[in-house]
Amino acid sequence: MELSEYLKHNESRIFDELFSLIVIPSVSAQSEHKADMLRCARRWQELLSQLGMDTSEVMPTDGNPVVFAEKRVGDGFPTILIYGHYDVMPVEPLELWHSNPFEPIVKDGKIWARGADDDKGQSFMHAKAIEYLLKEEILPCNVKFIVEGEEEIGSGSLETFCQTNKELLKADVILVSDTSMLSEDIPSITTGLRGLAYWQVEVTGPCSDLHSGIFGGAVANPINELCKLIASLTDDQHRITVPDFYDDVEEVSVEERDSMSQIPFDEEMYKASLKVQLLQGETGYSTLERTGIRPTFDVCGIWGGYSGEGAKTVLPSKAYAKLSCRLVPHQNHVKIGLLMKYHLESIAPKSITIDVKPIHGGDSYVCPIDIPWYKAAEAGYTKAFGKKPLPVRRGGSIPVIATFEKVLGVKTVLMGFGLESNAIHSPNENFPVDLFFKGITAIVEFYNQIRITNK
Amino acid sequence: MELSEYLKHNESRIFDELFSLIVIPSVSAQSEHKADMLRCARRWQELLSQLGMDTSEVMPTDGNPVVFAEKRVGDGFPTILIYGHYDVMPVEPLELWHSNPFEPIVKDGKIWARGADDDKGQSFMHAKAIEYLLKEEILPCNVKFIVEGEEEIGSGSLETFCQTNKELLKADVILVSDTSMLSEDIPSITTGLRGLAYWQVEVTGPCSDLHSGIFGGAVANPINELCKLIASLTDDQHRITVPDFYDDVEEVSVEERDSMSQIPFDEEMYKASLKVQLLQGETGYSTLERTGIRPTFDVCGIWGGYSGEGAKTVLPSKAYAKLSCRLVPHQNHVKIGLLMKYHLESIAPKSITIDVKPIHGGDSYVCPIDIPWYKAAEAGYTKAFGKKPLPVRRGGSIPVIATFEKVLGVKTVLMGFGLESNAIHSPNENFPVDLFFKGITAIVEFYNQIRITNK
Repeated sequence: MELSEYLKHNESRIFDELFSLIVIPSVSAQSEHKADMLRCARRWQELLSQLGMDTSEVMPTDGNPVVFAEKRVGDGFPTILIYGHYDVMPVEPLELWHSNPFEPIVKDGKIWARGADDDKGQSFMHAKAIEYLLKEEILPCNVKFIVEGEEEIGSGSLETFCQTNKELLKADVILVSDTSMLSEDIPSITTGLRGLAYWQVEVTGPCSDLHSGIFGGAVANPINELCKLIASLTDDQHRITVPDFYDDVEEVSVEERDSMSQIPFDEEMYKASLKVQLLQGETGYSTLERTGIRPTFDVCGIWGGYSGEGAKTVLPSKAYAKLSCRLVPHQNHVKIGLLMKYHLESIAPKSITIDVKPIHGGDSYVCPIDIPWYKAAEAGYTKAFGKKPLPVRRGGSIPVIATFEKVLGVKTVLMGFGLESNAIHSPNENFPVDLFFKGITAIVEFYNQIRITNK
Repeated sequence: MELSEYLKHNESRIFDELFSLIVIPSVSAQSEHKADMLRCARRWQELLSQLGMDTSEVMPTDGNPVVFAEKRVGDGFPTILIYGHYDVMPVEPLELWHSNPFEPIVKDGKIWARGADDDKGQSFMHAKAIEYLLKEEILPCNVKFIVEGEEEIGSGSLETFCQTNKELLKADVILVSDTSMLSEDIPSITTGLRGLAYWQVEVTGPCSDLHSGIFGGAVANPINELCKLIASLTDDQHRITVPDFYDDVEEVSVEERDSMSQIPFDEEMYKASLKVQLLQGETGYSTLERTGIRPTFDVCGIWGGYSGEGAKTVLPSKAYAKLSCRLVPHQNHVKIGLLMKYHLESIAPKSITIDVKPIHGGDSYVCPIDIPWYKAAEAGYTKAFGKKPLPVRRGGSIPVIATFEKVLGVKTVLMGFGLESNAIHSPNENFPVDLFFKGITAIVEFYNQIRITNK
């Protein structure tokens, strides 16, 4: 049966299966969802087992379990390791969602739900591509699946899991769908990912909340001081001021920057879609460079004092922030984590105390575009979208990709099919239905290319 | 009957009555407590009626009702207007309280509850002083009570109420117990109050929360920008940078600063009680000057982005802060409110939008120490504490005191009996039982002085 016919014929079952994953609120960052992590892993294992893998199992780690499955076609065939994650980001603020994030609906040609794209929707395309190849008996290689449950919190347990299971995970290449394209009209493959360092900061002033009239002016206010510390971390050029921060940053060649400048990019549309009047970033770099090849500093959260209705006059005892930096090739997240910690501790005034904890991180990754696996992926996109995809460096982080390279010694091809409008990590995450099926088409074609190459 | 005997004899009833006010959670800043405001006003009216006032009533305003009561002894006698407020501050964070804030308990010689001091405890001392003077038939003047329900949110309705009811509120002096003393060993009377300006700030970046990896570096982050704006509002000398902010600030004379420097103040004990290593404030001024005669800038609250468990990577759409300035004589809170608003709007980068709303304010107040009402209060403290009280300028704000002077043309004497350790506006607010009774003693003696003066 032709793939398009197969997908049409099985569409409602495929959605039912995908939705059975999405309805499980597997939010790894929130401990109240601990039990949902195992439920989601088990459901993945069932679905992989049903599509005809030789083995499938839920394997324990130090944290959330990993789902592993394998289909062997024989020795002497290449082995593809498919990686995905079943955990999702928190859904707050809930009031901004138009529908329940864990009750997927199809509306206006899109699936709306937390995980519709990142990464339940995207990783499930691989399961359905393999299902088709197995049904048609045209799978040209060995296939392994690894689906983890801690990607959104830094894949903390996966490095040990990879080290312990090197043989099990042995492969020639890793395929991951967890990135996005420039647009549906401009298909692209992510060839670079930024790294990440993430800190939680606690600033303590007086030992209890004080009356700001009685003490204000004489006692350091932890919110004022936290704002001053944060403000000092970037300069007028939007460069990060932490000493030695840029020491290891990859200097991208003039040629590569030239080629980046050829990527179609409509700044006016970009601004309009975000409803901002002006873009802002590091002086001397374009928007695509700022999000692709340069490190950044973003405060992901801040809180302290009174945030209720009305005007409470208080000089609070505590203020908190969650800080993050995106990192680029050669920057090590552990080193950067400590640089920031020591810098903040050294500049904090004696009138307060500060506690800076690196709580999350990963290194960056670059995929060469001249390896056969990349070429096969390129052919897949060309078949599905009618255009050769552009290789682009993107700003997001999938810390485990760098870990795979380090521990397993294997390159990853990032066959992502998301769009920026899919609102991953935001309210109203969604995934266009036609992209879901085009993605499966591209993945099936990836395997067709392997069959041709192997003949 | 001697006062001390009377108080001993009636102690448990007096506490029962006070606690019947405290158990009503009359938090004016939180709209869910709207019904509690009226309940609390009615309970005050009952208690005033029971102690033998000629009239007592709950009077409507544009906001929360005002309790008014009057006892006339005759024409030709002076009239004292007693002001208090029945509203209290929010109690959050609740988890820091050792007992329920609205279930008063007496423990270790203190009453523990929200409002135990500010201002249910302090204002109720006046009711009990008048009760005694009426029972003993020695009240030497006309007395009026006005107890309002919006003090903690800026007494927004009271100015109109005063203007509408000028005749009703006519008095020779106003007595207020809503301030604190230097310590129980160093009784003091507040002769100056700072004013207040309070703003809510909303900074908007992109129209929705974004993935900080995909957009970070190219799109302004509203938390980063809010921190920069806040940090820029004070300089290295801890002076406020808003243009023209200091234009109207009263220059306190060398003589008054000299006399302030005579006030006993143990900086080491002050630091130890707050558990801070270093005090911090405007260069060139002492701690008492910083909290008494100089304006300040404090962030009372800040929030934005993700504040939950773990590491959510988000470039948020919004960030918020509650800003406040304490003001000093001659600074007008409306003018300062607009200066800050225009300044923030003018310095905000075009990459974000900012909305700055002045939401609360009041002007400062100074009480002369050579008027007979101050002298009578001084004699009251001397009798109760065995020492002449020091006149001191304090940092808190009671906006309505400036309004009384402006609208009614009457000076206020601030007979406050609080302590800094009473934790008003904070978790575990408390009021020492012995201070409660010493306060009643001082107030009764105030009236004794009036009787002597009038003879």
